[in-house]
Amino acid sequence: MASFRSIEWLHDRGQLRLLDQRQLPAREEYVDCDTVTSLVAAINDMVVRGAPAIGVAAAYGLSIAAFGYQGKSLKELVRITQDAAAILKASRPTAVNLVWAVDEALRRIRSENAADAESFKSATIRIAHELYDEDIQTNRAIGAAAAELFAEQTTVIHHCNTGSIATVDYGTALGAIRIASESGKSVFVYVDETRPRLQGAKLTRWELQQFNIPHQLIVDGASGHVMRSRKVDFCIVGCDRVAANGDVANKIGTYNLAVVAQKNNVPFYVAAPLSTIDLKTISGAEIEIEERPDAEVTSVDGHSIAPTGTAVYNPAFDVTPGDLISGFITERGIVRPPFTANLAKLMEKSR
Amino acid sequence: MASFRSIEWLHDRGQLRLLDQRQLPAREEYVDCDTVTSLVAAINDMVVRGAPAIGVAAAYGLSIAAFGYQGKSLKELVRITQDAAAILKASRPTAVNLVWAVDEALRRIRSENAADAESFKSATIRIAHELYDEDIQTNRAIGAAAAELFAEQTTVIHHCNTGSIATVDYGTALGAIRIASESGKSVFVYVDETRPRLQGAKLTRWELQQFNIPHQLIVDGASGHVMRSRKVDFCIVGCDRVAANGDVANKIGTYNLAVVAQKNNVPFYVAAPLSTIDLKTISGAEIEIEERPDAEVTSVDGHSIAPTGTAVYNPAFDVTPGDLISGFITERGIVRPPFTANLAKLMEKSR
Repeated sequence: MASFRSIEWLHDRGQLRLLDQRQLPAREEYVDCDTVTSLVAAINDMVVRGAPAIGVAAAYGLSIAAFGYQGKSLKELVRITQDAAAILKASRPTAVNLVWAVDEALRRIRSENAADAESFKSATIRIAHELYDEDIQTNRAIGAAAAELFAEQTTVIHHCNTGSIATVDYGTALGAIRIASESGKSVFVYVDETRPRLQGAKLTRWELQQFNIPHQLIVDGASGHVMRSRKVDFCIVGCDRVAANGDVANKIGTYNLAVVAQKNNVPFYVAAPLSTIDLKTISGAEIEIEERPDAEVTSVDGHSIAPTGTAVYNPAFDVTPGDLISGFITERGIVRPPFTANLAKLMEKSR
Repeated sequence: MASFRSIEWLHDRGQLRLLDQRQLPAREEYVDCDTVTSLVAAINDMVVRGAPAIGVAAAYGLSIAAFGYQGKSLKELVRITQDAAAILKASRPTAVNLVWAVDEALRRIRSENAADAESFKSATIRIAHELYDEDIQTNRAIGAAAAELFAEQTTVIHHCNTGSIATVDYGTALGAIRIASESGKSVFVYVDETRPRLQGAKLTRWELQQFNIPHQLIVDGASGHVMRSRKVDFCIVGCDRVAANGDVANKIGTYNLAVVAQKNNVPFYVAAPLSTIDLKTISGAEIEIEERPDAEVTSVDGHSIAPTGTAVYNPAFDVTPGDLISGFITERGIVRPPFTANLAKLMEKSR
C-alpha cells in the first residue's frame, strides 16, 4: 500500500479529501473539496491526476453534490446530481475514465431505486465506495495479468506516472512493475522525467524509491539512446483513452516513445483498465487533445525558464496508433492485435 | 549580427573573453580566461558551448598558452603550446570541431615557420583570428546552401541551439533559418526545449525573438504530436560529429526526433560545417558519448526537481544513424545519400 491516500471520503463532512499531487514529493498536503466547483477546479489544476484517480474522485463528486442539498425532494436531488455529473464530465476532455466513472456511478445509483432523498444520498456514497474498491481490484488484476511479461531480470522504460496516486491505490503500469518486483523478480526501470509536469521525476521516481525498485531518471529525449546502447525488454505506460481500433491517448511524449520503441524492436505495452477502453471512439483521430497553460512549459515549480509572453504549444496528451502497441494489459488479461476484433471481444465478454 | 559576442580575444591582456551562456537569457555576463586550465573549465562547464564556438575558443587557447610564456626559447614555447593543445582537445569528448580546430590551428602555426618566440606568439593569434573569421563565412555559406530547402512558407522543428552564440556568429541550423527569414521567406519554428539544459527554451527562443521569427516552444516529447497534427516541412539540427557513413552525434534527443520524423515522412536535415565531418570515424558506434552530471537532470537553474541522490543517467549526446538523415547542409552545398561516397567526395574536394 502507498503511504499516502490519493482520495479519501470524509463522511461526517460530506467532503472529499485529495492528496495535493502538485506538492509531491516535497510536501504532503491535502485539499478538501466540499462543492462540485471546488472539485472541478482540483481536477483541472491537477491536484488529483491520473485517469483512474480522476474517475473515482469524480464519482465522489456526485456525493458532494447530493450532500450539499438540504431539501427533501428526491426529484430535485436527482436533478442536482445529474447537473453535477455533466459539469464533472467536462472538467478534463481527454481521459475517458472520468466520463465512464460518472456515468457508471449514475447508472448504479439509479438502479438502487432510492425511495427518498436520504436513501439517494446514501446510494451515491455506497456506489462511489464500490468504484473506489473496484479500482484497487482492477489494478491488482492488471499486475497479475502483466506477470507473464516480466522475466527474472527485466528492464523497462516507463513514461509519466501510473502509480498508486494516479489511481486509488497500486497503479496500472507502475502497479504491474511493483507487483513483479514484489513477486521476487528483478526489475530495473528507466524513468522518463515526462515534461512538462515532470510526473516521472517527481512521482514515479519517488514511488520506485519507496518500493526499493532500482531505477535511473532520464530526460524524455534520451529514451532512444537508452534503447540503442543498453538492454531494454519493453516499454510500459498507462493511458487516458483507448479507441476501438487500439489507438491510445496518453501523456504527451508517449507517441515519440512508441515510435522509437518500434524502430528498436522494443515491445510497447499499455496498461489499460476496461474503464479506459472506449469503443464509441472509433479511432484516435476523434479524441480531443487538451491543451494546457503555457506556464507548465515556461516555468518549473514557479521558477521561470522562459520569459512571460513566450509563445508555447502545450498539448497535454498525444495519440499513439494501435499499430505501435504490442498489447493492452487489462484486468481480464493481455489483449493482443488485431485490436479492433480483440478489444470488441473483450468488452463484449465484460458486459 | 547577434547583439552579444560569444568569443572575444582581449589582446592587451592575452585573455579570451567568453559570453557566459549558462546565464542567458537572464543575464549578460562574461568569463575571462587567462590560463588554459580556466578555459578548459569554461568549456567543461559550458560557459561556452556549441561545437563551432568551442572549436574557435580552443584555438584561442593556444594563444593563451603562448602569451603565458615569458621566456625567449622558441623550442620551449612550441612544447608549451603542444601541451596546451593536448589538454584542450580532451576537454570534451564528443564534438570533433574541438579536435579539428586545435589541430588545424597547430598545423597553420607550424607552417608559418616562426623564427623566434615573439613571432610564434603573433602567429597563434593570427591563426585563431583566421579560424574565427572562417567560422562566420562558413555559417553564411551554410545558410546560402540551405536556401533551396525553404519555400515561401516553411515550418520546421529545431532541436538544441545552433545559433549565433553556438558559433562565432550567425549559427549553423539556426543561421540557415535566420538567413531564409532575412531573404523574405516566412519561416515558423517549433522549438524543442531540449532537456536537460534547455538550450532551446533559453537560447534558441531568445535568438528567434530577437530576429522576429515566429515560433512556439514545445517540450521534446511533443515533436511527434506536432508532426501528426500540424504541417511540418522538415527538421533541422546541428551536429557535433559526422562519421564517414553519415552517422551523426548531436545533442541528446536528436535521435528520437529523427526517428519520429522518418515515421512521419518529414525530412531531417543536419547543418554540418566541414569541420564536423570526421572521416576517421567510420561509424557512430565509435563516437564516445559524454555523460554529464546528474544535477543537470535533477535541478533547473539550481532549483531542485528531484532530491540529491536520485539515480540518473545523463548522456549529453546521442547518435543518429545516417539512414534517418535526408541531407547534410555544408558550406559547399547539400550532401545527399549515399553518404559514405558523397561525404568522401566532398572532403576530397575540400583538401
